[in-house]
Formats: sequence, structure tokens, C-alpha cells
Amino acid sequence: MGMANIFHDSHDLYFKNPFGAMSCGQSATLRIAMGTEEEVKNVWVLLHEEGVLGVPDEIAMTRENQKSGLSIFSARINIPYKTGILWYHFKIEALSGVFYYGNNSHQTGGVGQTYILQPKPYQITVYSKELDTPSWFRQTVVYQIFPDRFFNGNDGRKIYGRKIYNKKKNSFIYSQWDDTPVYVKDDNGELLKWDFFGGNLKGIIRKLDYLKKLGVGCIYLNPIFESPSNHRYDVSDYKKVDGMLGDDDVFRKLVTEAQKRGISIVVDGVFSHTGSDSIYFNRYGNYAELGAYQSKDSIYYRWYKFESHPDEYKSWWGIKSLPEVNELDETYTDYIISGDDSVLRHWMSMGIKGWRLDVADELPDEFIERFRESLKKIDEEAVLIGEVWEDASNKISYEKRRNYLLGKGLDSVTNYPFRRIMLDFMFGEKGSRETTQMLMSLYENYPAKAFYSNLNLIGSHDVSRILTLLGGAPESKDMDMTQKYRYKLDVNMRQLGLKRLKLLSLVQMTYPGVPCIYYADEAGMEGYEDPFNRATYPWGGEDQGLLAWYRHFIRLRNENDAFKVGHWSPLELPEDVFGFTRSTPGGRGIFGEKATEQFFVVIINRSPANIADFEIKLAGCKSTAFEEIHTGEELACSAGILKMSLEGYSAKIFKKKDY
Amino acid sequence: MGMANIFHDSHDLYFKNPFGAMSCGQSATLRIAMGTEEEVKNVWVLLHEEGVLGVPDEIAMTRENQKSGLSIFSARINIPYKTGILWYHFKIEALSGVFYYGNNSHQTGGVGQTYILQPKPYQITVYSKELDTPSWFRQTVVYQIFPDRFFNGNDGRKIYGRKIYNKKKNSFIYSQWDDTPVYVKDDNGELLKWDFFGGNLKGIIRKLDYLKKLGVGCIYLNPIFESPSNHRYDVSDYKKVDGMLGDDDVFRKLVTEAQKRGISIVVDGVFSHTGSDSIYFNRYGNYAELGAYQSKDSIYYRWYKFESHPDEYKSWWGIKSLPEVNELDETYTDYIISGDDSVLRHWMSMGIKGWRLDVADELPDEFIERFRESLKKIDEEAVLIGEVWEDASNKISYEKRRNYLLGKGLDSVTNYPFRRIMLDFMFGEKGSRETTQMLMSLYENYPAKAFYSNLNLIGSHDVSRILTLLGGAPESKDMDMTQKYRYKLDVNMRQLGLKRLKLLSLVQMTYPGVPCIYYADEAGMEGYEDPFNRATYPWGGEDQGLLAWYRHFIRLRNENDAFKVGHWSPLELPEDVFGFTRSTPGGRGIFGEKATEQFFVVIINRSPANIADFEIKLAGCKSTAFEEIHTGEELACSAGILKMSLEGYSAKIFKKKDY
Repeated sequence: MGMANIFHDSHDLYFKNPFGAMSCGQSATLRIAMGTEEEVKNVWVLLHEEGVLGVPDEIAMTRENQKSGLSIFSARINIPYKTGILWYHFKIEALSGVFYYGNNSHQTGGVGQTYILQPKPYQITVYSKELDTPSWFRQTVVYQIFPDRFFNGNDGRKIYGRKIYNKKKNSFIYSQWDDTPVYVKDDNGELLKWDFFGGNLKGIIRKLDYLKKLGVGCIYLNPIFESPSNHRYDVSDYKKVDGMLGDDDVFRKLVTEAQKRGISIVVDGVFSHTGSDSIYFNRYGNYAELGAYQSKDSIYYRWYKFESHPDEYKSWWGIKSLPEVNELDETYTDYIISGDDSVLRHWMSMGIKGWRLDVADELPDEFIERFRESLKKIDEEAVLIGEVWEDASNKISYEKRRNYLLGKGLDSVTNYPFRRIMLDFMFGEKGSRETTQMLMSLYENYPAKAFYSNLNLIGSHDVSRILTLLGGAPESKDMDMTQKYRYKLDVNMRQLGLKRLKLLSLVQMTYPGVPCIYYADEAGMEGYEDPFNRATYPWGGEDQGLLAWYRHFIRLRNENDAFKVGHWSPLELPEDVFGFTRSTPGGRGIFGEKATEQFFVVIINRSPANIADFEIKLAGCKSTAFEEIHTGEELACSAGILKMSLEGYSAKIFKKKDY
Repeated sequence: MGMANIFHDSHDLYFKNPFGAMSCGQSATLRIAMGTEEEVKNVWVLLHEEGVLGVPDEIAMTRENQKSGLSIFSARINIPYKTGILWYHFKIEALSGVFYYGNNSHQTGGVGQTYILQPKPYQITVYSKELDTPSWFRQTVVYQIFPDRFFNGNDGRKIYGRKIYNKKKNSFIYSQWDDTPVYVKDDNGELLKWDFFGGNLKGIIRKLDYLKKLGVGCIYLNPIFESPSNHRYDVSDYKKVDGMLGDDDVFRKLVTEAQKRGISIVVDGVFSHTGSDSIYFNRYGNYAELGAYQSKDSIYYRWYKFESHPDEYKSWWGIKSLPEVNELDETYTDYIISGDDSVLRHWMSMGIKGWRLDVADELPDEFIERFRESLKKIDEEAVLIGEVWEDASNKISYEKRRNYLLGKGLDSVTNYPFRRIMLDFMFGEKGSRETTQMLMSLYENYPAKAFYSNLNLIGSHDVSRILTLLGGAPESKDMDMTQKYRYKLDVNMRQLGLKRLKLLSLVQMTYPGVPCIYYADEAGMEGYEDPFNRATYPWGGEDQGLLAWYRHFIRLRNENDAFKVGHWSPLELPEDVFGFTRSTPGGRGIFGEKATEQFFVVIINRSPANIADFEIKLAGCKSTAFEEIHTGEELACSAGILKMSLEGYSAKIFKKKDY
């Protein structure tokens, strides 16, 4: 077939302009090129609006002047007025028959491929013109705290031995702050006791200066509302600070003291389910209110999904302690969002600066949109983050395409794909070409303001500690709980892990979007997944080298506009080297922000070997001088080429000198 | 065979006089009777001294005058001058051949049986003339406390919420006093964490008035020396009060405050092994001393049984955290027993009144004897109790017959056989005839002062709670840990359990020997074996009826000499009824103590049915009047017969009126 040399690259402005996601009503140009050995009669671009029934629009493409032996076809397309996804692919009528050209098999965008039948389409995310995300948030650095495990701020001379107030049933408190957490389950795997270390809000207040010095601008708190568990995702009372953590006054003080240091507080809202041991469900009669479990007369009865009252009800992942709610029940939305003393208003009135919505995939778009609407009415600058584990621009949950990033939903999502992509690179499972392609896919699919609001995490309470992974610990699936409990990287593995973590955190701090540090990752904590990733911050036992590294690169970010608001452009590099540029050409950020004009080249070498004398093509750079920001090493760009070497497990950040 | 009607009854003074165990150098009369249908030529009694090689002594018996158609043979025998067991049986030469007569197949003593070959012998325990046990102890009531679970006496308004001082590694503290304890083990069943509730010595001091009111005269404390665990059988430092429990000053205060209330303190000594995490072994380097694990140069190296230093060593039941010691190593006995600041002296100097030796079976007789000798030199009135689970008069451990009760060993042993026998009776597995026979066996085998020092327990930290058993809970072997964790008797079962427990505790308080109450059994605690039998005392949640019952019958014992020092004699009763008499004829106790002259008849009915009009034969009672001590019901003894009825699950205690 002569059709193999058809070519379209959605990442190239010549073929698709503008780049990436587009706003409603915009228009765009698409081009496709093809070899001339066979006569092409007609080319169409086929547009399919997600959710619209019927056959796609077929738009005939115009043959442009031939260019270096290629036939070029182009079309101007109109982006719909409705948000969603506009899918496109090409149909080519040649002498030998009809062919298609569409997205590559990984659907990452960029260069596509020819299909005989059923082409995979390219994605154009269509977002609302009103889409905006808080500028402060895009430029901040977030620090995630699992409150029970950060610091016990009660009075007393020592970290442990401090008072702990805990009257929770079926719970216990570790005797030593640095103990390894466990789950205490019965023979059937059901939890018998909740384990606590006694970290609290006072502890966070006492460590605000630590966070300030680290360079953090926002704290994301795992749930703090009253609940029986240590993770508190099983809420008992949406309007009450858990007694072990503190009370309203302490929380207000935390907000105020944080504000004084330029730090915002974001809380975790769990609205797909409540705890069974709650005011609302009250399964165990621990609350004075008449709960839904207790009686159909409960004012909360409508919230829940009883199949047979009281013992059969829908619950999150079948976990009976987490009964699901009808999020769109009016009394529920009134209680959570719109009532005069709604949960949303209650906490906003205490000065928080945003919410993280737990399991966003479980929440109806309408719930999220109403939550957002009320949130922004109260504080336009407040941020709404959603927990999403995949590409949020095309996520399907419960057979429905989600509208997270189209303007009326979330400002930001948890960027687990970034973590996965970068881990694959660090481990050598994917080379820099594929890594770049994967990252480009997200960059292309996300509306730019959403992309720059991405919560770029490399650790969280739901995944193994990044250092354990990077150190090359055995895979979790090959370890039983006992082995995980006892596992520590040996000296050499830990050294390797630290080297890799330094490279990865460097990328995290210089990459577009909002770095999110899972507490104590910066201190060199290890641990497999839950509960081992929820051990306590090792006050006094931090890896000082790593901590200094984090401080340094957070500061680098905070002090250089190019890393906060600069354009991003990936580089073509040897497979073991990954890198990109960040720039603020003309003294403007990506969204037109005024910024210091800067140009950085960031590169890391994931391999143990020195990579000698490789070349970086930098479009438009001629005889420009660059300086490595730490060593002072100077490089001159010659004929658009920067030539350099990179030691094993090392990084360089070159800054253009002539601004 | 005409030899079936041979008869000897070791419980009958006519056939064996004196009754029971005998002291060295005593002499005794043995008789045997037989039918005359066949001519008996010769009868011998064969005596075999335990541990003496060679054939038994054959002592020809003398034919006495014929008695009611029976031939009677008798012999006077000399009890050896060496302590131990003297076994005897009879050899009968008749016309038809040689026969033997010996103990019955259960070897309970009493009526025996004929054998063709290899007769089972009768036991005569031969004890030292010097054998004595502390009179105060024989008359007291003991209360066993598992210190972590009794009461937290630290300051504070509520029982929980009180301060807890715990810096133990791998340990935690339950948030609620009334939580159900668990073991936290890894996938291989190895313990990961020790669980604590925070009971302490101050707590015991605060509850001394409770114990005083209960009628307790002696507290036996499970181990209190420094150790990593909650049971503290893995001693870290023999000379230090565990920091969670208190310190030397608090312990001294406990002793003093107890003394003020007439209560003695007995501590638990664990001398067959230490903890691996100890001053002595120091496996984890937690102590400053050079431990045996760390170096062969350790002064403690000789204490342990290394097979290959440092990782292979003998340990108790193969539990590596409990390395066994060479109890007879001079440096060990010096440290524990004889040195100027020995462990024994250290604690005696604080005013304790005795020791309970853990796992006595694992301790060489010589160690126990040396311990006793030093103990009694310091305080003649101090008591030495040993943990023994079977008949201690003939216990064989490690292929060696033990000398526990012969005068140089223990004063008292844990009377688990009493518990087993009485449980079998309560459950209807054995009738009162067999029950009496089993009890008589102990009575016969134990030197009287040892029998009257027996620690008569019905619960301990090593067996399921008595109420759970008596309530008819499913057998432990049929329950998994989860089921045991959640198990509670239902209302009816609990009622049944309480009825039975009242009867059983009544027997315990009126039976010869020292009642030992496992903390909170009197409050109606339930629970399967360890850890469920070690839950916390339910302050404020006691079963008040049961508690009042305990108080009443302990007081009955304390106020009536017949129950403390009186003779004991079992009664022949219907199979569902068990009973005995206690008496102080001529105003003397069993050991000649001056006593109020009393005569009690104690009977219980284990069945739900009324047992009507049964007869009790009381030798020598004629037209004597008896009064039931609670109801005032009067009975007259007529022609040696007391006739009465007994409601289902009830008891009566008749007291002879005419003293």
C-alpha cells in the first residue's frame, strides 16, 4: 500500500493549530500530508462530538500547494459551542480505495497512523470559555499531610510522651512515635482496631515554620472531620474537627497562622459516602441524632441507598462501614453545599482556601458543578481539586465521560499519570522519547489552565513511598505483609533511591503544574503502601541531604517565574536522558502573566553511566550562552545545537545568560 | 476366680492408718480383707521406695481374727527416712495361684482392684518431718492481679484519659479501658506489637479498699519487673519495677498500704528463662550492659544455653524471646538467690510476703530448695507457691519425679486439678461420687499442710474465664480467634453461668486450701483464653449480685474457723449433689490450732431440677439440730441421717446448732 507515508502530527502547529485543547466556538486548522506515488482523490476530516448521536461530520479538505514532494490537505474546523470532546480522524480516498488516518495505537496524540477500518480518533478537548483556575494555586507548592502522622503538638517536653486525647472505640495509640503502623484485622480480614499516633492540628501549627522554610505555599490536609478511623474517610460529623486533632478554635488558629506565613489550607471532602458510625447513619447508636440505619423516619434516611432497611445498603466498594449517599438528594446537597450553614460554608467561613474532593469519579458531575459554583461564589480564588487517577480529560466512570476539566468542574486533579510516566522513565521501562510522548498527551488533552493546575504528585497516602520504589524494593505483589512490615532498603539501594529521588523531585519542581509533596517524602521516608506509607514524620531523623535538596529546588521554583508560569517544551534526547525547557519569552508567562524573562534547560540522566557529548536541538538558538545554575559550567549554543555531557544519575539546569 | 472379693480401701482408717501422706520414720498399719471361699496361704505387702533400685521389700502380713466371714491380714510398715513416694501393693498366694491387689485403674486411691500381673500401686507420699507451711497463708484468701489490666491509678478525673507512661518499643495503648484485647501478629504468627491498657501499681493502691472489703488477705501479682510485654514473663531487669507500673517507691507504698489493711503481697518470679531484650541477654542492644547475646565475654554468658553463639540457643518452648537459663549456674543462683543484693533479697527487703515461681516444672528441685532456704531465712512466714498444673505429689517433669511438697520445696501449688475436677462436676461430666474420689486422691497424696496451702483457683491468666465456661460457651477448639473476640454469652447462658459460678465459688470458699480469685471473676467477666481472659476489670460495670455473693462467702470463710482450719470430710450424695463437712471438733483445727468449735455441712445441686428428700449420712450425729445459715431452715439429724431437699442450682450450708 502506498498509503504508509501519510502524516499528521497533532503536536505540530503546522498540522494542528492551535495546539491542544480548545475553547468553545473557536476555530482551528488541521492539515495532513501524504506521499504522491499514488493519486489521492479526496481527503476528509471526520469530526465526532462526544455524546452526539449519528454519523460524524465529514468536512472535505482542500489540497494545498504541493510541498517537497508531498500533497498537503487542509481544513478549517469549528469547535462546538458545547463542552466535551471533539474527536477527529481523516478519510482518504485514493485510487486503490479508501483509507483512514487516525491517532496512534497508544492514543497519545502526536504522529498517528493509517487504518483500513475503524481508525482511533484524535482528541480535542473542548472547554468553556469561562474556564479559569486560581493563579495563586498554579504557582504554589502543595504539602500533603496525613494528620495523625505528622506531629503531636500537645504540650510536653518530648515528641512522644505528649498527651493524647483519644476516646475512640476500638482504637489504640502507639507507644512510640517511630513505630511501624499495622492493621489489626480479624481472621476474616475485618478491621478490629484503629491505630493512632496522635498527630494533631497543634502539631501542624508548630511545624508551620518548617513548611515555610521548605517553601510550601499550600497545605492539603487528609480528612480532619470527626470519624472513628485514623484516615477519617469515614466521616461521622462533617461539621466537626475530630476531637483527637483539635477543635474549631485550633483549626482557626491553624488557618490564621498559616496565612501569616503565606500558606493556604485545603481540606479533604468525602461526599460519596459517610461513615456508618455517624450522626447521619448512626449504625451503632453512638450519636444522639436519629440515624438512617435506626429508622426510616430519620431525616437522613433519604441520603442512603437501602436495599432492605436497615442491614442491606449500598456501600463504597462493598465496605459496610462506608454507606454510599445519593449525592443529588436535595437534603444532601442542601446539607453539604447550599444550605445557610452548609458544610461547604461552614469550613469556608473558617478561612480555608479550597477543597480536595475524594473519589471524584464517584461523584456526579452535577454535584461537583454545584459544589464549584457555591465555592466560587464564596471565594473566587478558592481551589477545587479532584481525586482522579487517570487522564482526567477523557475519564469514563460508570460508563459516562466526565466533565472534570471543562470549566464547570474541577480546577485541578491529582496527577497520578505524571507519577506513573516518570517512574517508568526512572526505572528504564520507557525511554525519554516515549516518556515525552506520554507527557505530551496530557499536555495536549488538558485545557492549559487545568494542565498548569495539575497536582503533580510522586507520593500519596495511597501508593508506596517514592523512595522505597526508586530504591528498587521488591514489587509489592511479591511481598507479604510481614515482609513489607520489616522491609528497609539496604544501604546501597537507599543510596540509589536517594539519587533517583533527587532527579525526580527536581523534575517535579521544574515541571508545569503544582508540585505536591507527600509529607516526609522530603525527609527520606520509606514504606510500602498503606499502612506503611502512613508512618510518622521522622522528626530529628530526616535525611538532611535530601531535605536540603527539596528546599533548594522548591526555592528555585518559587524564585523563578519560568518554572511557575513559563512555557514548557520537551526535548529530543538520548533515551536515558529526559529534559525540557521552561521559558517566559517577552517577559510573559503562558497565560500572559508579567514575568521575568527567562529560559531554562532542565535535563536529567536516569542511568548510572555518563552520557557523553549528546546534542540538544534548541529551535531558534544561535550563539546563545547558557550557564549551569549550580556549577557555573558554561555552554554556547551553536547552530541551534547545545552539546553537553551528563554524569550518571545527575541533572543539569542551564539558564540562558543573556537576559 | 474367687479372688474378686479382695478388699482394701486406702481412704478407710481400718485399712490404712494413718490416712494419707506420712512423714519420714513414721510407722503405719495396712490391712487387707478377703473372702474365705478359697484358701489363702500367704499375703504380703510389697513396698517400693521411688528411686530405689532393686526388688520391692516383701513384708509378710499377719492373719488376724476372721471378721464377718472375711479373712483379714495386717502388717505394720515403717515409712522410710528419705522423702519421696513409697508405693505399696499386695501379693496374695492362694490355692489357685498368686494374685495381686493394688490401686484402682484411675489410681485415685481408696478402693483398689485385683490384678493377675503388674498391679498399679498405692501411693504414700513421704514428707520431711520439718514440713511446714505458713499458717497465715493457709487461712487467707488470695486475689490474683494481672497488673496492666486492673486499674490505672494515675491522676485524672476519669478511669481512662488518665496519663499513661509508656515508652516501650513496638507497643500500643488501647484508647478505651473496656476494649477487647488482641494479639497483633504478623503472617507467620510472630508478635508485632504488645498491647497495653495502662493498669499500674498506683491503681492497685487505689483499689486496696475494694479488696479489703472483698475480704482478700493476699494479693498475688503477675510479674511486675521491667519487661517489653504486657504479661512481663519476659523479664528485662529482675530488680526493677516496670516503668509503666511504677517504681520502687510506689511499690513500697503498695506494700505498706496493703499491710495497713492486713493484705500481703506475693510476686511472680520467672527463673527458668529471661527475656531476650534484657540486661542479661541484651539481644537488641537496648541495655548498657554487655549481654550474653552480644559477647561471650558477657558476665551473663554462662547463664544461657548457647548451641552456637549468638543466634542458636535454647529457649522456652522454642520462643526465641525467652532464652532459657542454667538455673544452677553459680553466678545465676548468686544473682537470684544468695548474693548480698540478690533478686530474692531485693524484693523481700521491700516487704513482700512471698513468691510464686513460674513454671516450677522447669526449675530444678535444687534451685527451688535453695530459693526456699534463703527465703525462709529472711522471713519464716513468707510463702513459696509454685505453678504446677497436675497432682504435684507425683508430678514427673523431664523424666524426674519432683519433690515439690516434701518439705524442702514449695509451700503451695496452683491447684488446677481442683478446677478441672469441679468443672467436670458442674458440667455433669462426672457425678459426685467420682468427683469426691478425685478430690480424695489429692487429699490423700498431699501432705496435709500442703493440701491446706493449695491455691484453689477456678480462673487464672492461663485459662478461659470461669463464667464463659460455666455459661456453656462453645468449646475453645471449635472457635476461631474472631469468634472468640466477639463472643459474649447470651442472656440465658449468662444467667446459667452466674448460677453455676455462685455454686462453684461457694465451694471454693468453703473448701480446704486457699481460695484464689482471678481479678474480675467476682465481677462477672467473660472471655476465652489469652488474650480474652486478660481484659480489664470493668469498674462500674460489675455484676453487683455476683460481687455481693463473693463478698458474702469470703466473709463466711474469714469469720468461721471451720472453713479456714477445719477438718474436711466428703459426703456420699446423689450424683448431682456435691458436698462435704467442715468441722473443728473439740475446738481444734486440723493442725491443732485453737478454734471455735463448729460443724458445717456444705452441699450444692449442680442440676436444674429439685433433688427431693435425699439423705446424708453423718457418722456419729444423733438427734443433732442443724440450721441453714441463710434461710434459718432447721433440720434434725436422726439416726445418723440428715434428710433434705435442694432446689435446682442451689446450695445449702447447715451449721450444727448446739455449740
